[in-house]
Parts: sequence; structure tokens; C-alpha cells
Amino acid sequence: MAHITTNTTAVLTASDISEIIRTVGLNHFMDDVIARIRGAALELDPETTLTIERGGFQYEKPTLGLVEWMPSMELGRAVGIKTVGYHPSNPTQRHLPSVMATTSIHDTSTGGLVALVEATLLTAIRTGAASAVVSDVLAASDSSVLGLVGCGAQAVTQAHAISRIRPITRIVAFDADPSIAATLAERLPLAIPIDLVETAADAIADADIVSTATTVEIGAGPVVQFGDFRPGVHINAVGADFPGKTELPVELLRAALVVPDEVAQCLKEGESQQLSEDELGPTLAELVQNAETFAEWRSELTVFDSTGWALEDLIIAEIALDYARELTIGYHTQLQHAPTDPYSPYESL
Amino acid sequence: MAHITTNTTAVLTASDISEIIRTVGLNHFMDDVIARIRGAALELDPETTLTIERGGFQYEKPTLGLVEWMPSMELGRAVGIKTVGYHPSNPTQRHLPSVMATTSIHDTSTGGLVALVEATLLTAIRTGAASAVVSDVLAASDSSVLGLVGCGAQAVTQAHAISRIRPITRIVAFDADPSIAATLAERLPLAIPIDLVETAADAIADADIVSTATTVEIGAGPVVQFGDFRPGVHINAVGADFPGKTELPVELLRAALVVPDEVAQCLKEGESQQLSEDELGPTLAELVQNAETFAEWRSELTVFDSTGWALEDLIIAEIALDYARELTIGYHTQLQHAPTDPYSPYESL
Repeated sequence: MAHITTNTTAVLTASDISEIIRTVGLNHFMDDVIARIRGAALELDPETTLTIERGGFQYEKPTLGLVEWMPSMELGRAVGIKTVGYHPSNPTQRHLPSVMATTSIHDTSTGGLVALVEATLLTAIRTGAASAVVSDVLAASDSSVLGLVGCGAQAVTQAHAISRIRPITRIVAFDADPSIAATLAERLPLAIPIDLVETAADAIADADIVSTATTVEIGAGPVVQFGDFRPGVHINAVGADFPGKTELPVELLRAALVVPDEVAQCLKEGESQQLSEDELGPTLAELVQNAETFAEWRSELTVFDSTGWALEDLIIAEIALDYARELTIGYHTQLQHAPTDPYSPYESL
Repeated sequence: MAHITTNTTAVLTASDISEIIRTVGLNHFMDDVIARIRGAALELDPETTLTIERGGFQYEKPTLGLVEWMPSMELGRAVGIKTVGYHPSNPTQRHLPSVMATTSIHDTSTGGLVALVEATLLTAIRTGAASAVVSDVLAASDSSVLGLVGCGAQAVTQAHAISRIRPITRIVAFDADPSIAATLAERLPLAIPIDLVETAADAIADADIVSTATTVEIGAGPVVQFGDFRPGVHINAVGADFPGKTELPVELLRAALVVPDEVAQCLKEGESQQLSEDELGPTLAELVQNAETFAEWRSELTVFDSTGWALEDLIIAEIALDYARELTIGYHTQLQHAPTDPYSPYESL
């Protein structure tokens, strides 16, 4: 993002984001996000790129859910804060996505809000892209069968992103709700045959890569069994994002190389809740920085513990803002009060 | 705020907030904010109204500043998150307010962003209102002289708010930068004579109530001396909002009843940095809930350690939203992505 010196706020709404992606092309956009997350991980300097473990309010009234904030900073440039709601009952009870998000970007030369970006669709895309970044290091290069456990919104971007980095020729998919599985093909932007199967075991039996993205209830996991996987499979575990919510059996995790995206967060709400810190493998960033070494794991059991990394949100918001400028999409508004005399708050009254 | 079931976002920009306040009347608006903060403090149920100590990034590059997030929740209804930048050099170097803020409000039945509200002006107003709430309990009922140490943006709302709850007939004001003090009268919405004086000691010598709101540098405090105050003065200490930044001498604090707005935050960045937790008096909420008892302190030395309480931000944003609905000000936008099929993130592409 170019340095912004005005104090107006650039706003990218849902329709702006859709227009950007339609104009750029969905595959091109996804490739960009994959490349930029990989690039940021490669160049990650913990002195200048900082993320803070997300905080949030969890509640059971009026319905089970949470609202969280995910902060990140590129020192000397920008602070990004994604605010995100997660309500697993949204799709069935309110016809809304379970994850709804917005990212605000603050210029660190003024503290002002320079951009506000829709992040519901962007969160789904960057989650897919992060799985692609990790799968590209850890999955066999000839991986052709993708297993999907859970066929909701996240499954769409998992399948899309992974098909960009591996020659996927067959998708085998399971959802505990067959009506959700039934519409997967029409929701996917892919000309890849999909086998809908009746058990999670069937979805993973032949898979070279698996993505789990279910809304399993707290304490009800795991949703798959260790013995049902092929030996060298790479698993993207996307669904665990809440204390007590896990999808994979602990004995599988103990046998695998487990790659957390953000260590503290994974230990708190990811699959890694079931592990201690010394049982974890490299982080996403460490993996990318040592990709050649870790490529030796392509024939071994590996797991990406994807809880969502705040830096991914800052990156994808900045990609959207870059395209918005290039394509003149979105608008600027004087959202924040800016009296001509900065000491005169009542000037306009 | 009425319960909102759509998933559009109400946006109140700087000009919307100004229009609301002009329409309602500045005094009426301030009285409302004072009453609603007092009311919320009075009815505060820690089981249903939650605030989390603010988090943030502090930095010295490209300039000294911070970006923080201040979360609050009214269980079963809404989560408010104010994001706020504090850059003390903004007014002199960038012609912008030192504090720039926005508040987002999330519906806890969906997690969606239901409102986005300009909060730069609102932060200044609620900070004044909070001082009025505390001063109304702890300052002598015939307080007529207000001392201001620091004449920037916060001084305007301090003087305005305090004049709403006490019969102020004279303001004595000092700023380390005389050019800032020189414009105070024209920035104040009050017909009260102002004496500009050349030292902080002169500003507080006759004052019944004092508000300190300076941009004193970290480690450079205190800005006033204990011996310069009248015995029964009530002090609103507004400026301390950064680790290492304090305005009052520790011996004064030790001799006073110190009322923190939010204990953990005050111990970290307020005047209470200089104290241990057991030296603190009642919180703002406890003070209001026991106002009759604490009114005995009106003839004694008292200090309000105002670091800014996240609940104040949620309250004032909701007041603005209530008026916006009543007056049909502001607009709704489909900021967040909302496909007709919640499982189909790519539907619009």
C-alpha cells in the first residue's frame, strides 16, 4: 500500500471487493494472495512485522458465538485490525455466513483510519490461500486427490486454492449435512469431478491432501479417525477456531509434523490445544523460510493447524486496496472528524 | 440501540455526527452523554456489561504514537470496539487531532458489523462527560472556578461538560504553548470569562475543580505541584494515557481519594501507574453507585484518573445512533459480503 497522507478513509464494500475480483479474475486474485502470503512469510522480520494473538468476547446468549479482533502491524507503515464474528448457526438460522468480518487499516504516521475493507469474502480466500502455501511445501508434488470434510463456505476456497498449486483431478467430499454437500459442485469455480460420499472415512481414504472445515460442536471432535488416512497425507485443519473445538484425533497430531500459523492462538483454539508447545513443528513462516528442508516431509504425515493469522488479513486487505486504486474502485469518505484547527473539536457545531 | 436484524452497516461520518449535535443542540447532547454514562455506571452489572483492558501497538517510527483497540460488550446485544490512534505531534506537525478514533458495533446475534461511527469528536465529548460524572459526585456543590492545565482539544470538552454540572463563573487556564492558550476562548462554547495565566501554579491556585490535559512527554511529569492546589480541590487527570506519561505528583495522589475509570488500564497507563492497586479508591462505577457516601469527600482532595473507559465509547456511539435513526441522518451500506447462499462465498463473482 502506498503511503497515504490525507485523513480520508478509503472504503471497499462487498460489491467493491466482488468487482475487483471479477475484473482481475478469480484465479489471478487467488494466485496473488497465495504469492503475497508466501512472500510475507519468507521475508517476515519479527522486529518490524508484529501480530498480537487475537482477543475476543465469547458468549452463549443470544446464541453461541464470538466477536474477535485480530491486530497486526507493519512497523513504520500500517496497523491492521480485523474484527470478526463467528456464529456457527448463522447459515442455518439466519441465512448469513458463519464468519463475518471487516478490516480497518490505520496509518502509523497519524493514527488515522485510512481504509475500511470488507473481509468476509477475503477471510475465506486468505484461509484457502494459507492452506495452499503450506500444502505447496508439504504435500506430494503429484497430489491429485483432495478430500474435503465439511462442505461449507471454507471448503470452496480450500478446493480452489489447493487446485492452484497441485494437479487435483478428483475431489472426494463429505458433509454431515448431505444437503450442504449436494450443492458443493455448483459453488466451486472448478471443472474437477466431485465424488460425494457418505462418511468422513470415505472422503479421506484416497486423498493426498485433506482439508477439514466443519462446524463440529465444542467437545464433539474428532471428526476423522487416524487409521482412515493414507500414510503420507497432508491435512489442512481449518475448523478448529474455538477453545474446545477440534477436528483431528490427538494420536494423529502426535504422529505428524504440525505446522501452526500462530503459536499462541493455535495452543488456545486450534488443533494444537491438544498438544504442548514442544510438540509443535515450524510455524507457517518458518516452514516457508525453510521450504527445501521441509519438502522432505512430502511423503510423511503433516498437518497445518490453521486458526487464521492476523498478518494474512492485513496482506489481503492491502492487495484489495492496491487493485482498488489501480482500477478506481471504491470511494473515499471523511469518516473521521477533522477540524481545520486540531484543537477545536466543536469547530463544525 | 434497537435490535437490528438486517446485515447492512449504518455509517455515521464526521459530518453526520456534527449534524446530529447541531440539530440536538450541543448542551443537550452533552447532558445526554453525562446522564447516560452516569446511568450505565449506576446499573453496571459486571455479569452482563464487560470491558476488556485496551490493547495496542506503541511505536516510535515513523513518529511516537500508538494505535489501540477498546472492546466492550453488552451481553446479548452488542460488542463495541473503538480503534483509536494517539499521536501527540499530530496537531503541530500534521494539523490533525492527536486522538483519532472510530467505533464499530457488532450485533451479538449474528456477529455482523451493524454500525460504524466516527469517534474522534465523540471521544473528546465522552471524556468531558466522564469528568462531569465524577466531578458531580466529588466537587463542592458551589464550585465556581475551573482551572485548566493544558488548553488543547480535551480542555474544550472538559470546560463544557463541567460547566453543565457546576456553576462555573471563571476559568483560569494555562498551556505550556501560549499560542494554544490564546485561542481557547474562541474554541469554547461558553460565555464564561477566561483568565490566561503564565504558570500551571497560577491556573490551579484558586480552582475548585481542575482538569489536566496536557501532552507532557513520557517521564517529564508532573506538570503541577501538590502545594499549589487548594485543599478540597477535585482534579480530573485526563492526560495520562501512556506508560510513563503522568501529570500529577505521587505525593498528591497518595493524599487523595483516587477514582480510576478502569483499574487495570489506570495501573498501566494512568496516574495510578504511580500507585499500587490497594491505594486506589472506588472506580467510576462504584463511585456513582455510592454517590451519597462519597459526597462526604466534596471538601477533601480527590482525583479522577481518566484513561478512557471502553463502555463510554459504546454508550456515546449508541446515543449518536439513536439520534441518527430519529433524525434520519447517516446511511446504510452493504459493507459486509452477504451471498444469498451463505455457503457460497464466490456467488457474486
